[in-house]
Amino acid sequence: MENHKDNMIVACNLACESVKCGSGPFGAIIVKNDTQEIISTGHNMVTTEKDPTLHAEIVAIRNACRALNTYKLENCTLYSSCEPCPMCLSAAYWAHIPTIYYGNTRIDAKNIGFDDSFIYEEIQKDNNKRKIQMIHLEECSEYSKKSFDDWMEKEDKELY
Amino acid sequence: MENHKDNMIVACNLACESVKCGSGPFGAIIVKNDTQEIISTGHNMVTTEKDPTLHAEIVAIRNACRALNTYKLENCTLYSSCEPCPMCLSAAYWAHIPTIYYGNTRIDAKNIGFDDSFIYEEIQKDNNKRKIQMIHLEECSEYSKKSFDDWMEKEDKELY
Repeated sequence: MENHKDNMIVACNLACESVKCGSGPFGAIIVKNDTQEIISTGHNMVTTEKDPTLHAEIVAIRNACRALNTYKLENCTLYSSCEPCPMCLSAAYWAHIPTIYYGNTRIDAKNIGFDDSFIYEEIQKDNNKRKIQMIHLEECSEYSKKSFDDWMEKEDKELY
Repeated sequence: MENHKDNMIVACNLACESVKCGSGPFGAIIVKNDTQEIISTGHNMVTTEKDPTLHAEIVAIRNACRALNTYKLENCTLYSSCEPCPMCLSAAYWAHIPTIYYGNTRIDAKNIGFDDSFIYEEIQKDNNKRKIQMIHLEECSEYSKKSFDDWMEKEDKELY
């Protein structure tokens, strides 16, 4: 039987542990739907590992994929102590995770100084209106198209 | 002197290598602005490493952070053979990268079967209208708030 509250408490406890370790206040777990087993855990490790991609959800997704030897977590649920930022939400899409439970919201995160909400706003803007300057090098298209052509021509490719 | 075209060609060549390795057609490099040195490279490794987060840009960002021993790449430029997906664009925000040059667009990616464009659309939707079911467990707020309170009370915390 699913026990969302108990699973969320595990994720929240990881978030508290993360603060004790000197990292951001975020924890996450991934549960396999059929067995309700916790197959992976993660907490924020950005400052401790000096890696801006190591958010709790990314760590949990990577650990789950390692545990199940797959990059598709379509039969799993993600529990996160906080609403995932756009990076982690997108990672959940790429991992084919169908359901996410979360505790704190992106507004709660903003209120304690995290940029989740800002990045959600930036992503929705046109490329030329973002804080990050984005430049389309169209003059290189003969080079950039090559890999896409190679991909289309490849017969044994693995779609993900 | 900056040479955007030459840098982009390196990223595009990595994308072609990636296809040869059995991974997706994406390559990226990170260049240090002051020296114009290529400090990291990356190509897609999702299927080969069974890790849905290992897009070219994520790999390049992680490698650059390792090379420079920091999680902030504010003096670097990212060159990607394709417009970054929302996961990778968000990672660039978290890494404080100010400028991104890209080759193929998200529409080009969509046309060869990649979900970048779909995920951009999903992220802009309200949480309750997405393909991923997102459930806010408000009844757990006493647990989820705890780590945020701990964070606010912590005196020696490292902001990122």
